[in-house]
Amino acid sequence: MGSVIPLKKSANSAYLELKNMLGVKLQKVESLIEQKLKSDVDLIKKMSEHHLKSGGKRLRALLTLESAKLTGYKEEIRDINLAACVELIHSATLLHDDVIDESSLRRGVKTTNSIWGNQSSILVGDYLLSRCFEIMVQDGDLEILQLLSSTSAKIAQGEVLQLQHKGEADLLEETYIDIINLKTAALFSAATKTGACISGSNEKEKKALESYGRNLGLAFQIADDALDYYAKEKFFGKEIGKDFYEGKVTLPLITIFQKGNEEEKEFLMEIMKKNKRTEDDFSETLALIFKYKAVETSLKKAEYFVNVSYDALAIFPDSEDKRILQSLTSFSLNRSF
Amino acid sequence: MGSVIPLKKSANSAYLELKNMLGVKLQKVESLIEQKLKSDVDLIKKMSEHHLKSGGKRLRALLTLESAKLTGYKEEIRDINLAACVELIHSATLLHDDVIDESSLRRGVKTTNSIWGNQSSILVGDYLLSRCFEIMVQDGDLEILQLLSSTSAKIAQGEVLQLQHKGEADLLEETYIDIINLKTAALFSAATKTGACISGSNEKEKKALESYGRNLGLAFQIADDALDYYAKEKFFGKEIGKDFYEGKVTLPLITIFQKGNEEEKEFLMEIMKKNKRTEDDFSETLALIFKYKAVETSLKKAEYFVNVSYDALAIFPDSEDKRILQSLTSFSLNRSF
Repeated sequence: MGSVIPLKKSANSAYLELKNMLGVKLQKVESLIEQKLKSDVDLIKKMSEHHLKSGGKRLRALLTLESAKLTGYKEEIRDINLAACVELIHSATLLHDDVIDESSLRRGVKTTNSIWGNQSSILVGDYLLSRCFEIMVQDGDLEILQLLSSTSAKIAQGEVLQLQHKGEADLLEETYIDIINLKTAALFSAATKTGACISGSNEKEKKALESYGRNLGLAFQIADDALDYYAKEKFFGKEIGKDFYEGKVTLPLITIFQKGNEEEKEFLMEIMKKNKRTEDDFSETLALIFKYKAVETSLKKAEYFVNVSYDALAIFPDSEDKRILQSLTSFSLNRSF
Repeated sequence: MGSVIPLKKSANSAYLELKNMLGVKLQKVESLIEQKLKSDVDLIKKMSEHHLKSGGKRLRALLTLESAKLTGYKEEIRDINLAACVELIHSATLLHDDVIDESSLRRGVKTTNSIWGNQSSILVGDYLLSRCFEIMVQDGDLEILQLLSSTSAKIAQGEVLQLQHKGEADLLEETYIDIINLKTAALFSAATKTGACISGSNEKEKKALESYGRNLGLAFQIADDALDYYAKEKFFGKEIGKDFYEGKVTLPLITIFQKGNEEEKEFLMEIMKKNKRTEDDFSETLALIFKYKAVETSLKKAEYFVNVSYDALAIFPDSEDKRILQSLTSFSLNRSF
């Protein structure tokens, strides 16, 4: 079967099930965000609305809502408020990422920076983050405030670490894991742990959901990075080869470097060091990806985290909510969006 | 005397007095910031240290410390922590501002973005802001958390508003005041109000210090903007004409527009609309600034805010601390740095 990864349409069902189940709540999260982003400054309103409407799976918000539900939170408001915060941290990060990566499209929609420029996008990112802190403060739970503010610092650290290692073809796999732990998994684990905090769970339950989230986040990011060498744009909503052209070294390239011969390693070192890579560079690299089954190897490694994530839920009694969170772990690997 | 503003060296004495009086505390603020910015990511440590060491008057931190002192705070720790927060919000803003304005020097020192690039600077700004929230959360006062997070949102809004009106020579004076209220005065007033909150002041005292801070901030920004058409670099530590070349319309230009004839207004509209302005444009503009005494007129208007600021302290009994805060108001107008 070579480099072809089966993108099972059915694998999306866990996500869709979750989204349907929490549809009403998610709608309230969206409304809250919209309401909170109102600003006397018209441009901010326009930009943040555009940015937030350009989609996204709202997966992190769903994780907070569902983790609260799993652990017995029956009321409403705190879960809505904090799911909105988690999503706002993610959105603020994306705004700055798009500036940093000079991205012009996100999920097929023009990015905020490509329409209104980098300068306003930086500031609107700051605005989203500040508003998010305001909502958290209103909620008033100091443990959650502590968790989410330190998460926000971690994300920035992860992004800097990633920048610092740009173009480094011999990046250690462990450094790569450090990077995605900070830039992606930290927010996933904060999202699920926040859910547990909302319902007043005990330490054990909080730790379990934190671990579920972190490992799910790692699996997601590895899959995302792997599919950058595989997925078709129309399925995945992102351009193939984006990381490669930006000089970001991810697990598929690390895999080639681990398995390749001297000549191939040399080639990788050379092209990743360059300021710009050509389409020919990409074709040659794709041939190596194919030769060493680098996408499959990466997804195989992601499976490890999928399993740890799945197993972290063992302490919870069986329930519909637990089942959905469990099936969501395989969504991280087999998804078409 | 034409356009020459007397820069009384003695006017700095209020600031120096304040700095000397709070020297030990300020040192603790600096150490706390340094300690909090430690990161496993080496580059972040290097960049934030460089950025924080490139000076600044630490005026906002001093305002928090002194407001707490004025209202009777006798202990230590909370004032240090929160003065550090106020300074970190300011620093994060400056980092992003330098990227947005493409500045290469700040107070004669190379900016972080000019050494390490825009991308890392955006992220380190996010990191500073997140760390600052962590310190606030540790302090745990929800009123202060609410105040400082909404202030952070206001700063971003002010900066966007400023961007939005770039190149607009017929900017209304009221819009200009709105902008500096958000981008500068909001943090000044939050700094002083925070001091009052720390000492458990009553609403009246909080409001008085908030008003003192806001009006001081307005005066400071107007003076800063006015001196951009006057101050010598070596005195003021900023390049003259910076705002002009960046297309930022501030009170001196607004003044020319208010007083100028049709031809002069037309000239201003034309040159401010351009993407870049030449040195000749600047010379011609300076001639108009001189003709209409625009710097003096601006500083005269700033005096109004200086007085409101001074008078806001009336409710406090006379003391050494009150006297220093009072004299600080004229420092905003007559300073050589």
